[in-house]
Amino acid sequence: MTEFSKYMSLSLMFLLVSCTIISSGEARIRRYKWEAKYEYKSPDCYKKLVITINGRSPGPTIRATQGDTVIVELKNNLLTENLAIHWHRIRQIGTPWFDGSEGVTQCPILPGDTFTYEFVVDRAGTYLYHAHYGMQRDAGLYGSIRVALPDGKSEPFSYDYDRSIILTDWYHKSSYEQATGLSSIPFVWVGEPQSLLIQGKGRFNCSLPSVGAGLCNATSPECSPYVLTVVSGKTYRLRIGSLTSLSALSFEIEGHNMTVVEADGHFVEPFVVTRLFIYSGETYSVLVTANQDPSRNYWSTSKVVSRNSTTPNGLAIFNYYPNHPKKLPPTIPPRGPIWNDVGPRLNQSLALKSHRNFIQPPPKTSNRVIVLLNTQNRVNGNVRWSVNNVSYNHPHTPYLISLKENLQNSFDQTPPPEGYDDSNYDIYSVAPNVNGTTSNSIYRLQFNSTVDIILQNANSMNNNTSETHPWHLHGHDFWVLGHGKGKFNRSTDPKNYDLISPIMKNTVPVHPYGWTALRFRADNPGAWAFHCHIESHFFMGMGVVFEQGIDRVGKLPSSIYGCGDTKGLLRP
Amino acid sequence: MTEFSKYMSLSLMFLLVSCTIISSGEARIRRYKWEAKYEYKSPDCYKKLVITINGRSPGPTIRATQGDTVIVELKNNLLTENLAIHWHRIRQIGTPWFDGSEGVTQCPILPGDTFTYEFVVDRAGTYLYHAHYGMQRDAGLYGSIRVALPDGKSEPFSYDYDRSIILTDWYHKSSYEQATGLSSIPFVWVGEPQSLLIQGKGRFNCSLPSVGAGLCNATSPECSPYVLTVVSGKTYRLRIGSLTSLSALSFEIEGHNMTVVEADGHFVEPFVVTRLFIYSGETYSVLVTANQDPSRNYWSTSKVVSRNSTTPNGLAIFNYYPNHPKKLPPTIPPRGPIWNDVGPRLNQSLALKSHRNFIQPPPKTSNRVIVLLNTQNRVNGNVRWSVNNVSYNHPHTPYLISLKENLQNSFDQTPPPEGYDDSNYDIYSVAPNVNGTTSNSIYRLQFNSTVDIILQNANSMNNNTSETHPWHLHGHDFWVLGHGKGKFNRSTDPKNYDLISPIMKNTVPVHPYGWTALRFRADNPGAWAFHCHIESHFFMGMGVVFEQGIDRVGKLPSSIYGCGDTKGLLRP
Repeated sequence: MTEFSKYMSLSLMFLLVSCTIISSGEARIRRYKWEAKYEYKSPDCYKKLVITINGRSPGPTIRATQGDTVIVELKNNLLTENLAIHWHRIRQIGTPWFDGSEGVTQCPILPGDTFTYEFVVDRAGTYLYHAHYGMQRDAGLYGSIRVALPDGKSEPFSYDYDRSIILTDWYHKSSYEQATGLSSIPFVWVGEPQSLLIQGKGRFNCSLPSVGAGLCNATSPECSPYVLTVVSGKTYRLRIGSLTSLSALSFEIEGHNMTVVEADGHFVEPFVVTRLFIYSGETYSVLVTANQDPSRNYWSTSKVVSRNSTTPNGLAIFNYYPNHPKKLPPTIPPRGPIWNDVGPRLNQSLALKSHRNFIQPPPKTSNRVIVLLNTQNRVNGNVRWSVNNVSYNHPHTPYLISLKENLQNSFDQTPPPEGYDDSNYDIYSVAPNVNGTTSNSIYRLQFNSTVDIILQNANSMNNNTSETHPWHLHGHDFWVLGHGKGKFNRSTDPKNYDLISPIMKNTVPVHPYGWTALRFRADNPGAWAFHCHIESHFFMGMGVVFEQGIDRVGKLPSSIYGCGDTKGLLRP
Repeated sequence: MTEFSKYMSLSLMFLLVSCTIISSGEARIRRYKWEAKYEYKSPDCYKKLVITINGRSPGPTIRATQGDTVIVELKNNLLTENLAIHWHRIRQIGTPWFDGSEGVTQCPILPGDTFTYEFVVDRAGTYLYHAHYGMQRDAGLYGSIRVALPDGKSEPFSYDYDRSIILTDWYHKSSYEQATGLSSIPFVWVGEPQSLLIQGKGRFNCSLPSVGAGLCNATSPECSPYVLTVVSGKTYRLRIGSLTSLSALSFEIEGHNMTVVEADGHFVEPFVVTRLFIYSGETYSVLVTANQDPSRNYWSTSKVVSRNSTTPNGLAIFNYYPNHPKKLPPTIPPRGPIWNDVGPRLNQSLALKSHRNFIQPPPKTSNRVIVLLNTQNRVNGNVRWSVNNVSYNHPHTPYLISLKENLQNSFDQTPPPEGYDDSNYDIYSVAPNVNGTTSNSIYRLQFNSTVDIILQNANSMNNNTSETHPWHLHGHDFWVLGHGKGKFNRSTDPKNYDLISPIMKNTVPVHPYGWTALRFRADNPGAWAFHCHIESHFFMGMGVVFEQGIDRVGKLPSSIYGCGDTKGLLRP
C-alpha cells in the first residue's frame, strides 16, 4: 500500500465514521458527531494548543447536496471554556438561532454540553465554518463546507476534479494572550502572524533565536507542506477559502493561470488571473489546468498584501503525479506582488460580476441608505475600531433572544447613527474624534425592505495608513454595487452602481481610503451580525447588528438559552 | 511621601474602594465587588497570563469578624472562560450551594455574568479562597480570608502584629497547556514548577537559554522579593497558607524560631519549629519574635520537599526596620531540609494537637469506616489517580442539584467501594491493577452519623515511589486520629487513635507509604468534595464526593443552575 493510498483509505474511514448519511426522500440528512477539544499541534512546526474537531485542525469537511439538512452534534470538551460555531454563508432561513454567533444568536456552549446545530443547505457552493466566540477562531477551529448541486444540475463550467483548501495566518500566542493585549492599557497589538498556513500547514523558522527550547520541530510531519496532487492535462476546481485572522492574501500557483468561476458561492462571469486576492471570510473557486511541464512539481504560495508584513509566504506543493509529492520544485518560490499596490486588488474587486446565465438582478432602488465610516478610535484609553464613532460591544444576552422575548434592558435601545458628518470629515487624516463611545445598540430594518450599506474607509490612528477591511454579513448575501476611491459621494457615485450584473457575496473588502456599496433585502427574520472579518478588528469593536422581522421568527430552541438575562427564561 | 507610605495609602484606598462594610446589629456584612480577568503579570519575572481579581494576584484579602456575612459579587470578565471560587474551610452551613466547587455545588459562572457568593464566617481563623474549576487555580486566582474573634474574645497567645502570606508554586505553562498534557496519550506530566512564590512573588532565572526572547525581565518590580518588615523586639503572628499546585513545602525564617499556634483555623498546643512543613490547602499561624541582630535583614525561604525537585527555593526578605527593605541579607539563604526525609514531616503531623483549652472531643466511636487506597492507574490509556481503583470524574451536572432535584441519570448511582482488598494488596509495589475505571459515583452518608476515613497511601506507577497527598474536605473539619507507616491495620491501629486532644483540620497529608485516619460528623447537609489538593492529582481523578442530609438542604438559589441537566430546570 503506498503512503498516498494509505492516507486516502484512512481519510475515507474517518469520513465514514464521523458522518452518517441518512436518506429521507429527496433531501438527505447529513449527521456529524463532533468533539471539540484542546490538543497540542504543530501546524507550522511550532507546538501550541489548538482547538481540534475530532482531532483535526482544519476540522472535517462537511459535504452535502443542495437541499440537504446538516446536523452537527457538537460536544464541547474544552475544560473551562465555552464555544460557538458559525456556519459561514449559510443563511439559516427559518433557523436564525443556529447561525452560531455567540452574543447575537445564541448563548455559548458550556464545557461538557452537546449542542446540536441543524440547518438546511439550500444553495450549492463553497462554504466555511469557524468558531465565533471571543477570538477562538484563532485557536484553529475552522473547516470547509462543500454543497453540491442537485442531480441533473451542473455548473456553467467543467472540471475533472474538485479540491478544497483554506488559507489562514497563524499566531503562536494563544487567543487569550492576543485578546488580553488588545484590551490592555497600554494597547498591545497582536503583531504580524508568525506564519501562513495552506490547508492547516505552514512553516515557521525554528532556528530563530527567539524560539524557546523544545517548542519548534522543523522535521515534524505536521508541518510538511500541503501537497495538491494533479494529473497532467486534467482540470481542477480548486475551492479556496480564507479564514485569516488578520491578513489579506495573494494566492498563486507557479506557472499556472487560474480562471475564477465562483465567488462566495455564486457563479462568476469567468476571468483569468495569475494571482488571486482573497480576504478573510471570502471563498472562490478557480479552475486550474495541469498544463505545464509534468516532469516537475510547482510552488503554490500565499503572501500577505495590504500590510507591510514580516510574515514569510505560505508554501504548498502543486505536485504533478507521478512525481514524488515531497519533491521540491526546482525553482525559487514566487515572491508574490508588492504589498501596497492597491490597484490590482481593486481591479479584481471590480472584475467580479455575476455569471451572465445566473444573474439575480438587484432591486433598482433602496428604502434606506446607511453609511458606515470605519475608523480607529480611542475609547476610555483603549484602542478600538469604530463605525460612525461607535465601537461595538457584544451584549451579555444574545440579541435574538432579547428581541424575541422583548428584554428591553438587555441592550441599548437607542438606534446607532445612520451615517457620519461626511461633509466635514477628512478621511485622509487621523480621526479627529479620538474619543469614541462603545455601544451594543443595533440597526432595526423594516422586514423585506431594501437596504444600501456604504462602507466608507478612512485613515486609522497612524498617519497615512488606511487598512483593508473585509466585511461579512450573516444571514444574507448582498449585491456589490460598486467600489470607489476616496470619499463616497451620495449624489454622483450611485449613478455608477452596477445594477445589471453585480456579483452577490457575503464578504467584501473595503479598500484603503475607498468605499464599497452594497445592497441587500432584509428578508431573513432574525438578528444578524455584519462585521469586519479580521478577528482582532471585530474584537476591537468593528461591527454592527441588523434586526429584521423579529415577529416572524419561530419559537426559539431552549438550547440557545442559558446566559445573561435568558437564564431565568429557560423552560423545560 | 516615602515609597512605603505611598504603597500603604494606595493599599488602603484600594481596600476602601473594593470593600464596603455595612453594619447590621452585631454581625456585619462585608461586601466585596470583584472583577476577574486575564492580565499579563510577571510574578517570578516571567511574563504570562494570570487571572487577577481587581487587578491583583493574589487577590484582595477578605477581612471579617466571626459571625459576619461575607458577600462577594464576582464579575467574570474572562473572555470565553467560566469561573468558580471556593471558600476554603468555610463550612457553608445552610449555604452548601456557595461552596464554589464547580460540578459539585454549582454550575460555572459564565463570562459576563456576576455571581454573588454570600456566606457566614462562623468561626475565627485563617482561611483561603481559590478557583475551583478545571485547573484554574494554577492561573493565579487565589487569596486570603482572615476572620477575627469577636470583641471580648482572644486567642490563647499574644502578639503585636498580624501578617498573612500565601505560598505557591508557579508554572509558566497555562492551565490549559497543563491540563491538555495530563489528559493526552502519551501522558505529558506538568513537571516541576518553574519557581516558588511567597505572597505572589518569586524569581525565575531569566538568563536560562530556554527562555524565549522578551518574556522574562529580571528587573521587573513585580518580581522583587516579598518583604516582611518587622520591628525589633516585637512578636508577629504570621498566617501562612499554602496553595501550591503540586509542591509540599518547608518554610523557614533564617535564624528565627517559629511557634505553631494555629492549624487550619484551630488553636494548637504550641510547639516550636525552625522549619514549618506545609501542604497545599493547609494554613498555619506561627509566632515569630524579632529577636535577632536588628542591624541586618534575614532570608525567609520556601523549599520543595517530598519530591526531588529542580525548582529553586522561594526567597523573601525578613526586614528589620529601619534597614532598607531591599537590602539583601549578608548570608547565603538557608538551603532547607533534604527532600526525601519523611521523618521530620511525620513528626510535625504527629505534634499537631488541639490546644488544651480548646479541645473539641471527637465521638468515641464511628458508624462507618471508609478506607481510601490512593494509587496511580492507567485508565483507557490515560495516566490517572484512583481511590480504590476508581478514578473520579466530575459529572456534567453538579451533584447538589442532581441530588436535590432527584436527577438520577446525572451521575452513576452505584456506590463506590468502601475499601480495597487490603489483605492481598501490596502497597509497596506498582499497582497490579493498572486498568482502573472512572466514575462519578458518590458516598452517601447517613445524616449526623460519624464517619472514619482511612487514607491509605501506596506505590505510584513508578518503582519505589510514593507521593505525599494533602487531602482536603469541603464543608467540614475532621479530627486527625492518627498517622502511621505502612499498611493500616484495622484491628490494631485504631487502638492508638488520639481520642483525647486530636487536632481538627480540613486538609491533612497522607505521607509516603503511610496512612492517615480521620473522623468527622456528617452533620452538614449538602454534597461535599474530598480530594487531594494537588491541582493535577485532583484533575487526574484523586477525589471522592460525600452526600449527607440532602433532604435538609434548603431551596437552591437559581444562580447555581444553568449547566448540564439543570438547564431546563431554571425557574424565573
